[in-house]
Amino acid sequence: MRVLGIDPGTQRTGWGIVETRRRRLVPLASGVIRTGKRPLPARLKIIHDSLTEVIREWAPGVVAIEDIFMAKHANAAMKLGHARGAAMVAAANCELDVHEYPPALVKRTVAGKGGADKTQVAKMVAVVLGLKELPGLDATDALAIAITHCQGIGRPASGTRPKPGAATTRARKKRAL
Amino acid sequence: MRVLGIDPGTQRTGWGIVETRRRRLVPLASGVIRTGKRPLPARLKIIHDSLTEVIREWAPGVVAIEDIFMAKHANAAMKLGHARGAAMVAAANCELDVHEYPPALVKRTVAGKGGADKTQVAKMVAVVLGLKELPGLDATDALAIAITHCQGIGRPASGTRPKPGAATTRARKKRAL
Repeated sequence: MRVLGIDPGTQRTGWGIVETRRRRLVPLASGVIRTGKRPLPARLKIIHDSLTEVIREWAPGVVAIEDIFMAKHANAAMKLGHARGAAMVAAANCELDVHEYPPALVKRTVAGKGGADKTQVAKMVAVVLGLKELPGLDATDALAIAITHCQGIGRPASGTRPKPGAATTRARKKRAL
Repeated sequence: MRVLGIDPGTQRTGWGIVETRRRRLVPLASGVIRTGKRPLPARLKIIHDSLTEVIREWAPGVVAIEDIFMAKHANAAMKLGHARGAAMVAAANCELDVHEYPPALVKRTVAGKGGADKTQVAKMVAVVLGLKELPGLDATDALAIAITHCQGIGRPASGTRPKPGAATTRARKKRAL
């Protein structure tokens, strides 16, 4: 199974491709889509087009995306909603299922606790994927989201496995909203 | 000038095409995109694809969309953000500029006061566009947004003209975010 993880944002959208091979998780590629100082619609088009390109190049079978339903500020939530919308349209246009994972579940799956900070998550992403050097933070977060999907579904041999089915149940629940 | 007005929502997205002919505003078409009970990505794809179809069929020169930066609830704001994101990607993919208008400005432009209720707005949309029968509320709101853009830019002969440049300045400001 090949998973595209996405950490959406209107300024920077991280992405990462992770593949499960038997009981191993193999990182194939990752990157950050930077949208620069453009009007919002142009930024969203860049996110949509770039992710479409990534999907065409790497042919993932499924998309995993960060789900922040606990955003405190309405304006920040709406901005994030725009970026997620653009990413979801790209996935849906390529006929890929989208699974959503809340940040706490991603942290718990990858770093063992829901309150882990970015550095702890990054370290564990490196361990789980056997990376000597990590990409930037946005791409690392995207890889963490892809790992979360793989851990919930593919059950690879990592020690940081979440409760069986926890991630997938949550994902299905969210998708039915 | 032909304007596509959009009132975005994940369940129902209203749209309306208004054209300025000399000093008259002429309604050409309107409708509501209903997304049914589907997962969010599938809904967004329907919004994106349907609006792309509307743009291809009616060839508007510009898009006007409702801008709600005052949403009180983060979750509602994020949902709305998704729908706006899908609509903006459709517009940007068709190389159309997107202008954003806050609801109070739309109400003030169409019905004379920012606190006008939906019935008052609908009545004035009918008067301004010379409609004997109004479409549903979502489509009427979309027509009101299109009218707001026309009033600010095209200056047709309606008595409900906003302060010169008010709408466009706001739109430019928002677009630069």
